[in-house]
Amino acid sequence: MKRTCFLFTLLLIVSSSFSFAQRPAYVLVIHGGAGNITPERIPPDKQVLYKQKLTEALTTGETVLAGGGTALDAVVAAIQVMEESPLFNSGKGAVFNAEGKNELDASIMDGKTLKAGAVAGVMTIKSPIAAARRVMDSSAHVMMAGRGAEEFARVQGLEIVDPSYFYTEESWQEYLKVKARIEKDGRKGTVGAVALDMKGDLAAATSTGGMTFKKYGRIGDSPIIGAGTYANNESCAVSCTGHGEYFIRNSVAFDVSARMLYLGEAVDQAAGYIINEKLKAQGAAGGLIALDNDGNIAMPFNTSGMFRGYVKQGEKIQVFVFR
Amino acid sequence: MKRTCFLFTLLLIVSSSFSFAQRPAYVLVIHGGAGNITPERIPPDKQVLYKQKLTEALTTGETVLAGGGTALDAVVAAIQVMEESPLFNSGKGAVFNAEGKNELDASIMDGKTLKAGAVAGVMTIKSPIAAARRVMDSSAHVMMAGRGAEEFARVQGLEIVDPSYFYTEESWQEYLKVKARIEKDGRKGTVGAVALDMKGDLAAATSTGGMTFKKYGRIGDSPIIGAGTYANNESCAVSCTGHGEYFIRNSVAFDVSARMLYLGEAVDQAAGYIINEKLKAQGAAGGLIALDNDGNIAMPFNTSGMFRGYVKQGEKIQVFVFR
Repeated sequence: MKRTCFLFTLLLIVSSSFSFAQRPAYVLVIHGGAGNITPERIPPDKQVLYKQKLTEALTTGETVLAGGGTALDAVVAAIQVMEESPLFNSGKGAVFNAEGKNELDASIMDGKTLKAGAVAGVMTIKSPIAAARRVMDSSAHVMMAGRGAEEFARVQGLEIVDPSYFYTEESWQEYLKVKARIEKDGRKGTVGAVALDMKGDLAAATSTGGMTFKKYGRIGDSPIIGAGTYANNESCAVSCTGHGEYFIRNSVAFDVSARMLYLGEAVDQAAGYIINEKLKAQGAAGGLIALDNDGNIAMPFNTSGMFRGYVKQGEKIQVFVFR
Repeated sequence: MKRTCFLFTLLLIVSSSFSFAQRPAYVLVIHGGAGNITPERIPPDKQVLYKQKLTEALTTGETVLAGGGTALDAVVAAIQVMEESPLFNSGKGAVFNAEGKNELDASIMDGKTLKAGAVAGVMTIKSPIAAARRVMDSSAHVMMAGRGAEEFARVQGLEIVDPSYFYTEESWQEYLKVKARIEKDGRKGTVGAVALDMKGDLAAATSTGGMTFKKYGRIGDSPIIGAGTYANNESCAVSCTGHGEYFIRNSVAFDVSARMLYLGEAVDQAAGYIINEKLKAQGAAGGLIALDNDGNIAMPFNTSGMFRGYVKQGEKIQVFVFR
């Protein structure tokens, strides 16, 4: 009797301790936002542009990882490619707030040290993700907001631009449509990246322009560690995109890690449950990318589409737009 | 053999499902900050003032609960007593930032609906916790920062004050000492409250002036749902105080709930582990108050003292300063 119980327990321990697939030397996963992304809203020529830019971001990040660079450097490099593109709601392509201004947020977390950095509501920093990285590396704080964050970035020597840098005709047209209530929300998405490097370290990062026509200095989940971004070498790295208020209230990014560590769930199980059951039951739209310390990937979303892709050492780059 | 396993499992389920103490009709727990709080730094006459004010806050909150009011109303009422006192680092007593200004943060969460509200970096709202409540109740957002949050509060009809309202001689002297590097940090603390009402609903709230001499629009854990504040009827209500950067990186408030729900830990076990083991191992100073849906309380801190107290229906108010 005792022996059967013991053998059963042993079997459980053994089956959960061994991973049968070999861990790839490095992995990089990115997203460019989830939402009402359908073939009607994103015509074929636009799909090609998105896939090209996602591929470029993955290639740039992969170059870092393949050269033995860190997961932190890789997520920043991949995100900067997307920040510089008008296709995404981050950096250059940021959407307009209710006052017709571009107000950007970003965050980053190092899974090895649990150090993190974030900026919120900045209007003159060319690369918000670089500023978040600098908050993590060169300050005693985790999160800085508004003019204070801009002043910090300036002192740190980061590139400061005139707010007009973030003007794009497409974001402005979206602003006018949302203002005129012709559209409920814009079609461009937050960007994010998670990476596993050759040393086995994980990192996560997210960068966004927030919601079109957002009011009153609204801060979403993207600059909030534990909500939009989280990384921990013991479990996973996560970057979220979607209806930020729900992602904050559910501490989504941290919860993926908590379910893995406390419930023993696999990364796809934990991430899938949160997006497709927990958030869906609350009527919350969005998705996330997650990567565990064995290189396993999850990219669940409960919307019609999510710009996303990944690359693993020795494999071809994969990019996707719809289901 | 099967039967023994079955009986053993049954015993586990039964023992974890029943609580042997009767649930009190209502409970309110508050804190006024954790830190280097020693009899040397807080002389007896000051200790009396603190205990009187903690008692007044508990009495005010208890009146709400005893009258059948909600946990949400009770935590706001208790916190507003502390916000109006110069003894604590919140509202009136807020510390000064590096520019010699008072910049306040607050957050609140409803355990029944998981709705939440927060304001960060506000300088003219008399009661930041009232503003956080209004963000939760009357906006589509969870978090607002800076001038946008102030504009929202003004539109909502909340009391707006001149920034000079937050001037107190004690906070100014602390500012001068920290500026002159005579002191490492101030001695006044963040305030928080968690409550369980007669309907069995939980709520949590936190309000602070941040760190003395904080720079660059630094945002700590207090306005961050999942870091400084969290409430969920299925598990617990939590309000934190301490070195905010660590509380953000560890999603402390959400983690208390996650450990209870996923690991089956009791509230004192979960809260005690995080404060006395996890955070202590990282060199992070602080404490928290937590309350589960059966009315069980935890008030762990890894510093020399924490202003704190609680009241349960039918019991005398208890307040404490040191260990």
